Amino acid sequence: MKGKKTNIISDKIMSTIESIQPMPFTLLQDALAKIDNKTKPLGSLGVLERLAVQLALIQQDLNPTLKRKLMLVFGADHGITEEGVSAFPSEVTRQMLENFFKGGAGINVICAQHQIDFKVIDMGVKGEFYDHPVLINKKIRNGTRNFALESAMTRDEAIQAIESGMEVVFDELNSQGIDILGVGEIGIGNTTCAAAIISTVTGISPAEATGRGTGIDDNGLERKIKVIEKALAFHQIDSKDGMEILCKVGGLEIAGIVGAILAAASKKIAVVLDGVISTAAGLIAYVLCPEIKEYLIAGHKSVETAQQAALSFMGLEPVIDLKMRLGEGTGAAMAIDVADTACRVMRDMASFEEAGVSNSDS
Amino acid sequence: MKGKKTNIISDKIMSTIESIQPMPFTLLQDALAKIDNKTKPLGSLGVLERLAVQLALIQQDLNPTLKRKLMLVFGADHGITEEGVSAFPSEVTRQMLENFFKGGAGINVICAQHQIDFKVIDMGVKGEFYDHPVLINKKIRNGTRNFALESAMTRDEAIQAIESGMEVVFDELNSQGIDILGVGEIGIGNTTCAAAIISTVTGISPAEATGRGTGIDDNGLERKIKVIEKALAFHQIDSKDGMEILCKVGGLEIAGIVGAILAAASKKIAVVLDGVISTAAGLIAYVLCPEIKEYLIAGHKSVETAQQAALSFMGLEPVIDLKMRLGEGTGAAMAIDVADTACRVMRDMASFEEAGVSNSDS
Repeated sequence: MKGKKTNIISDKIMSTIESIQPMPFTLLQDALAKIDNKTKPLGSLGVLERLAVQLALIQQDLNPTLKRKLMLVFGADHGITEEGVSAFPSEVTRQMLENFFKGGAGINVICAQHQIDFKVIDMGVKGEFYDHPVLINKKIRNGTRNFALESAMTRDEAIQAIESGMEVVFDELNSQGIDILGVGEIGIGNTTCAAAIISTVTGISPAEATGRGTGIDDNGLERKIKVIEKALAFHQIDSKDGMEILCKVGGLEIAGIVGAILAAASKKIAVVLDGVISTAAGLIAYVLCPEIKEYLIAGHKSVETAQQAALSFMGLEPVIDLKMRLGEGTGAAMAIDVADTACRVMRDMASFEEAGVSNSDS
Repeated sequence: MKGKKTNIISDKIMSTIESIQPMPFTLLQDALAKIDNKTKPLGSLGVLERLAVQLALIQQDLNPTLKRKLMLVFGADHGITEEGVSAFPSEVTRQMLENFFKGGAGINVICAQHQIDFKVIDMGVKGEFYDHPVLINKKIRNGTRNFALESAMTRDEAIQAIESGMEVVFDELNSQGIDILGVGEIGIGNTTCAAAIISTVTGISPAEATGRGTGIDDNGLERKIKVIEKALAFHQIDSKDGMEILCKVGGLEIAGIVGAILAAASKKIAVVLDGVISTAAGLIAYVLCPEIKEYLIAGHKSVETAQQAALSFMGLEPVIDLKMRLGEGTGAAMAIDVADTACRVMRDMASFEEAGVSNSDS
C-alpha cells in the first residue's frame, strides 16, 4: 500500500516501512486538554504547545520526556562537485569530519550546550579515517558518481545506504535508547542534490530550488542551476518513486538519513529535520511512506528556499528561524532544545486548578 | 543632552542615564573577523553571528561569556482593569506571583531548563506576600490608578519605581554578578498600558497597537481600543517625554523594567526584552536614552503586533519567533539560551586555520 514500486526495495526496508503506523491519536483530546489547562492564556505558548502535543502523541505519554537526545550527522562526498557547483573544495567534507572529531564545529558547540549526544556516520567520505569514539563507519563507497553524467548510486548502493542508516538508529536505540533524534549532514556538493530532489518531488523549477549553498557567487549560482536543469532533463525521474530519486540525484548521506528517519519512526521516535539537505532526505522518506509526517519536526527554517517548498509539500512548519544555513544538524540541535522546553511545559507547568489561579472569564 | 525635560528626573536616574555610554566599537572589526573565520560558510549562523558580535562588544571581550543569567520578573496591578480590558480578573496577578513562588509557571520551567536565575519583584501587586527566596519587595502602592480617568502614577511614584528597578539590578550585580539580564512582567491589564505607550511613541493608532492580550474576544477588543483612544485623547501626552508617558499611561512594573534596563546598560550588561510590555518599557528607556539600543536584544517576536512597531522604532530585530504571547519573560528566557549559544560559537568553534579546513575559494 505504501510507497511505489516497493518490490525493488529490500525486505528489511520494506518491513521497517510497514511497521510505521499512522499516529495513534487516542491521546489527542487529553493532550490538548492538558496543555490548555496550564496556567497561561489559551494558546499563548505558540509553537511550544504544538510540539508538546506532538511529542505526547509520539511517545503516547502525557508526560513526554527527552532523556537521551541524539544527533546523527551523516557525511559523504559527491561526484557532482566535478561540475563546479560548490564554493568549497570537496576535501572539506573530510576536513570537517576531522573538525567534528576535535569538537570544533558548530554542531559540536550546540550539542555540548544542550546535552545532545553526537555521532558522525561516514557513509561515503573520500579516504579512510582513524577510529574515533563519535565515528560510525558505514562507508558504501568513496562518494557518489557525478549525476550530471550518470546515476549517483546504483539501486544496491542506495539500499545498502538506507539500511546502514537504519542500523545506526536500531543499534543506538538498543544500546542507550533514543528519545528524540536529530538528523544532520556534511557533504560538499549536497545542496545540489537537495535542490534536484526537491525540484523533482514538489515540482518547483531548478531555478527556484537552487540556493547558494556554502556561498557561491552569481556566476556559480547560474552554473549550479544549469547543472541541475540538465541532469533532471537527462534522468527523467518518476517523482513518485523515492528510490529512483535517491539513486539518480541523491547522496549516500541523504540515503543514510532516509534510513534513520524510517527506523526512528518505526520505533515511535520523533525526528527533527535540519536544513535543506536533511529536509530533502525527509521528503524522500515521505514519498516512500507518507505516514512518516506525524513523526517529523521541521527543526528550523533554512535560508535555502527549496527547504520551505519541501516543508510545505509535507505540511510541516519550521520551529525556529535564526536565518541559519550551516547544516551539520545545527538548526535541528537548536530545535531539539525547544522540543525539550515543550516537554517540560507539558510535564512541569501547573494547571489553573493546581496553582489556584482563576481562569479566563471568556 | 540625553532625553528631555530631564530636570524632573531624580539625580539618581539622571546619573545612571549619563553613565550609559555609546557602545565602544573598538572591537568591532576584530569581532567580525573572528566570527567570519569560524569553520562555517560566511554568515551561515545567521542571528547567532549578530548576537555573538553584539555580546562581544557589550562585554568588550572577544570571548563573551554568560556565566550568571538573570531573569527579573516585575509584577504590578493596574487601575485600568476597572474598564474591563482583560479576559482575566485582576487577582490573577497575585495568584500568578504565588505560582512563580511554587515553580509552576511557564517562566519557572524555562528558567530551570536554561539555568537562568529568577527573581520576582513586587512593584505594586494588590495585597501583601509572605517572604519567599525569589521575591524582592519593592511595592510602591497597591496597583496604579485607572488611567482612563487620571494619571496612572504621580511623578514621584514613577521615579521611585524606576529607582527600585535600578536598585534591584545594582544589588544583584554586587552580590552575584550579572552577565545577561532578561526582563519580564506580570500584571493583568498591562497590555493596555503597552498599547497606549507604543501608540504614543511610534504614532501607530490605538486600533493598530491593541491586541487581545490574555485572550479577549471581539467585543472586548473593541472596548479595549476605545478605552485607549479616549485615554490618549484625554492625556495629550508629549511623545518625546518618557517620564510623562510612564506617569500617565504606564505601570509600576513597566517603570521597574525601565529602571532595570537603564541600570544594566550603565554597567555594560546586555538586556533581553520579552514581549509587548517588556518592549514598551524598553521603548520608554529608549526615549529617555537612545544610547540604550546597543545594549538591548529583542528576545522574541510576540503575537501582539504593537511589539513589532516598537522594535522597528528602535531598529531592533527579534531573535526568535515561536508565536508566543505569554509574557512573564518566557520569550526572553528562550532568547537568553540562544544568546548563550552565540557566545559559545564565538568562544568554542574552531577557525579554519585551527581546524585545518580549506576556506571557500570565493
